[in-house]
Parts: sequence; C-alpha cells; structure tokens
Amino acid sequence: MLYFEDFSEGRRFEYQPVELKPATMIAFASEFDQQPMHLDEEAGKRSILGGLAASGWHTSAIGMRMMLDAFMGDSSSQGSPGIDFMDWKKPVIAGDVLSGFSLVVEARRSKSRPGLGIVKFRNELMNQRGEPVTVSECSVLFRCREKEQG
Amino acid sequence: MLYFEDFSEGRRFEYQPVELKPATMIAFASEFDQQPMHLDEEAGKRSILGGLAASGWHTSAIGMRMMLDAFMGDSSSQGSPGIDFMDWKKPVIAGDVLSGFSLVVEARRSKSRPGLGIVKFRNELMNQRGEPVTVSECSVLFRCREKEQG
Repeated sequence: MLYFEDFSEGRRFEYQPVELKPATMIAFASEFDQQPMHLDEEAGKRSILGGLAASGWHTSAIGMRMMLDAFMGDSSSQGSPGIDFMDWKKPVIAGDVLSGFSLVVEARRSKSRPGLGIVKFRNELMNQRGEPVTVSECSVLFRCREKEQG
Repeated sequence: MLYFEDFSEGRRFEYQPVELKPATMIAFASEFDQQPMHLDEEAGKRSILGGLAASGWHTSAIGMRMMLDAFMGDSSSQGSPGIDFMDWKKPVIAGDVLSGFSLVVEARRSKSRPGLGIVKFRNELMNQRGEPVTVSECSVLFRCREKEQG
C-alpha cells in the first residue's frame, strides 16, 4: 500500500500497454462524444485526425485506468482536485497500443488538511511508435502513513 | 450548423440538466476509475468526498456530452488540442442534477491551418444548489464558413 511518503520527487511508475479497440472507442463516443470522427472510420479518415480516432476524454479516462493499475489502485488516494492541463498531442487511432508513465514532480504535506499530502504527477501516454499522444499534469491527495510531528 | 464565425466572444450556450444516477456512476468507475469512493456508497461516506462520488473523469465526460447536446453536435467542430485546466471544485454525489454552460472567451483564425478557427471556451457545471462543481477551459477547432480573404 502506497502512502504519501512513498511518492518521492522523481519516482516514476510505468504503465502496462493497452490496445484501443474500435468497438470500445465507438461505445464511449456514443455515450459522451458523438462527433463523426469518433464514431465512424470513413468520417475519421475524411477528418484532420486521419482515421477512427478516440475521443480525447476516452483516452484520458484510459490513462486514469492505466495509472490505477500501475500503482494508484493500491494506494491511500483520496481523489484529485483537478487537472492542471491535458494536451491531446496526436490522434489515437483504432488499433493503437498505448503505454505510458506517471512521474512525481512535486510532493508536499497539505496545510489545510492534516494527515494528507498532495502529489503532483506528470503523466504521459505514447503510441506503439513512441510518439507522445497525451501529456498532462494533475495533483492527487494521499493519506500519510505517519502523522506529522509537532 | 455553427461555424467558426458563429462563436463570437461572450456568446454563451446553456446546457440541459442531467441527473447523475448511481448505476451509471458505478459503471463508469468500474471501467476507468475503480477507487472505493466512486464504487461504493459506504466507502464514499467514509471518504473526504462525503458520499458515492462520480469520478472526475466521468463528470468531465458528461460535461462533454452536455456541450455537444447544447451546441457542438450541430457544428463544424474538428476536435480539440486539449484542456487548459479542469478544476473539480466539489464532489458530484449520486442524485445530483448538473446544469451548466459554455462561454466563448476567445476566437481567432488558425495561422497554420487555413479554413480553421480556434475557439476557447470556459465551461462550468453546477449542481442543483447552484454550487460550481467543475470549471474548465478548452480550445476547439472549427471549420470556417467563409474562406479567409487574400
């Protein structure tokens, strides 16, 4: 079980690869982001994305899942106050295999909530050609293992 | 059909209200964000979120759907390069009814892609008590109705 104290600056967590299958891309888009390039291969090919392309929100949610599977699912996470930024740098096309990592860029105790710490991660996903497809930073609250002294 | 030229700065698009039902919250979290406070009411009550709380990624994806239903589904959208920021300001608890709006904060022609324009939106979702739950800004590419002059 990972606590705040385990997230030292510079620590890096690698994700297991995930393939994006057309059916799951279309299912997500049908519910949340029904733009033609996310629903239909021909429409995707005619678009500037160049093929059936995942909704950026789908790619982002998959990134959350990869982060959980890599380390956060076995941690004292208390949730996140938000995303500092999320760049969708390249289209994610059906059949792409994503890998990635989370890097701890900052870790500090919460001033307002004793017993919690705030960890800022830089998260990157890349495709099977090693091209970055998403780059983001977000903060996550974790419970501390040890109560703060004094 | 809305084109780039229709997104004048200050124009505001109101969303239709959407209720967050426990079953859909749990289904989303089971796939993308299996943290206890997103999966189980009792775990949510014990957490700092105070109840069965939607994954921030779920609330964000619902916001995308509300944006599409309000105006973007009938537009020349070509997708988005990313999210400038997304603040999850308050937990979204099962049974909450979200409403919201998109406000055009900036609109300019693309220099690198003739025929396209870039529109920056500020998007806010609030709950049935009028409390802001998410605040975000993102840019979206739209085709222009008219080719740019000389």
